[in-house]
Amino acid sequence: MKYSSFEVAGTGPTWGVAQDDELFDLGPSGLNLAQSLRGAIVNSTYANPELAWQDAPRVSASDVTFLPPIPDPGKILCIGMNYTSHQAETGRDRVPAPTVFTRFADSQMGHLQPAVRPLANSLFDYEGELALVISKPAYRVDQADAFDFIAGYSVYNDFSVRDWQRATSQWTPGKNFPSTGAFGPYLVPPGDLGDIALLRLETSVNGEVRQSASIADLTFTIPEIIAHVSTFTPLSPGDVIVTGTPGGVGFYRDPQSLLSAGDLVEVAVSDIGVLSNTVVQG
Amino acid sequence: MKYSSFEVAGTGPTWGVAQDDELFDLGPSGLNLAQSLRGAIVNSTYANPELAWQDAPRVSASDVTFLPPIPDPGKILCIGMNYTSHQAETGRDRVPAPTVFTRFADSQMGHLQPAVRPLANSLFDYEGELALVISKPAYRVDQADAFDFIAGYSVYNDFSVRDWQRATSQWTPGKNFPSTGAFGPYLVPPGDLGDIALLRLETSVNGEVRQSASIADLTFTIPEIIAHVSTFTPLSPGDVIVTGTPGGVGFYRDPQSLLSAGDLVEVAVSDIGVLSNTVVQG
Repeated sequence: MKYSSFEVAGTGPTWGVAQDDELFDLGPSGLNLAQSLRGAIVNSTYANPELAWQDAPRVSASDVTFLPPIPDPGKILCIGMNYTSHQAETGRDRVPAPTVFTRFADSQMGHLQPAVRPLANSLFDYEGELALVISKPAYRVDQADAFDFIAGYSVYNDFSVRDWQRATSQWTPGKNFPSTGAFGPYLVPPGDLGDIALLRLETSVNGEVRQSASIADLTFTIPEIIAHVSTFTPLSPGDVIVTGTPGGVGFYRDPQSLLSAGDLVEVAVSDIGVLSNTVVQG
Repeated sequence: MKYSSFEVAGTGPTWGVAQDDELFDLGPSGLNLAQSLRGAIVNSTYANPELAWQDAPRVSASDVTFLPPIPDPGKILCIGMNYTSHQAETGRDRVPAPTVFTRFADSQMGHLQPAVRPLANSLFDYEGELALVISKPAYRVDQADAFDFIAGYSVYNDFSVRDWQRATSQWTPGKNFPSTGAFGPYLVPPGDLGDIALLRLETSVNGEVRQSASIADLTFTIPEIIAHVSTFTPLSPGDVIVTGTPGGVGFYRDPQSLLSAGDLVEVAVSDIGVLSNTVVQG
């Protein structure tokens, strides 16, 4: 089962089940089982096998605006340097702990929404990633229990403004411009996916594959990340962890290959979905 | 005029004017002119010369729990490496742009609340800083206009867990443990302060002065910081910018002098106030 947050023109944000090319509206403009997908995670409407979602009003996917599955997470924690292939291209050593930086929620946008290259000469780049959403309060979680705190998996494109990211030691500025955190279109419960390590991540630009990796290649595993992050900050339902990008980003290619207006960037994670965004000049 | 957010035992959070050793309750448990100090900034109750605050119910400062002036800012942006004296002790070069990292709101605590050294062997350190609070939506602000977006100034202690800060290139983990972002006790409108560059910042541990600097020593000025930050992320009323710490932190002293349970840390900014917190072992 796949879930999305979306909006039909003229009505407010809603959420529901995505199947084939239709969305079954379970939110405020439909069955109203919860105010939002995060609310549905909290009240256990989400991923409930007894849910009669087929009874909901349906709308064609081509008639909606996709929102990020969680438009307003309290915390977005991004992991850097988490694939050997990306560590190698950046010239960095293996790190002793997950590298953690943050995004603000208002830097996010949904599937098919423009990715905004912010300034005239921005070094604008893609980073395809697997994302996960937290299901319940998580603080000082043991690695052995970590999978119990995951509501589902999604796809993320951590678009990066390299000149602003690399101007100083801290990456915050290059990771927080509006419309640079692409997220979606689907949130998929772990029970519908089997072993997450077997999935593959692939990023393409205008149809040319630029990044290709197995989730099994993550340097710090998902339980290691959740245990580490929840040691220093309490997590809540709807919080998002973006697990890192593999080698092949545009900045380190030879020749360098950054993004310009009109470029179509697609991030696919097998069994989860394809996240597509076209670059526009801000 | 000085403003605080606080709580009287048995009632919820409120806010008001602080004068001498009394608080005049202008919030939900008093005159109820706004739900919170942030609300008062938005509805212009705050810093309004016509406000008859003397009519409000009053309570002794010794009978309240101080909260951070803004307990739940949407964004907390911290500037690192912003005094030459601190750049020198860390061995870093002058940076070409402000170094920006973030705190989550739930890492904050108020004046006289414990500063929690989180783990048994934590390298726990102080960083006394001047903080400012944003008054109105601010996006792509020109330096020349930057002072128009400041609701007031306050004092911050950006307590840092050095081992978690320095484990990787990104400082997020060492800056976000609960009860490490001390903030307050007062928010003071710019009009009550004169030239902010003339103020002095002083941090002491158990009465011994450890940091002493003039706000004029900031490498990136307050207008430069606001212009830079608002280029990559939109700011809202109540957002907090913490402007950086001068030389003298415990980690770089010779001999090194980190914090243990029982240490009293006081950060004073002239004309604004003194922020006091005692370290406890978490």
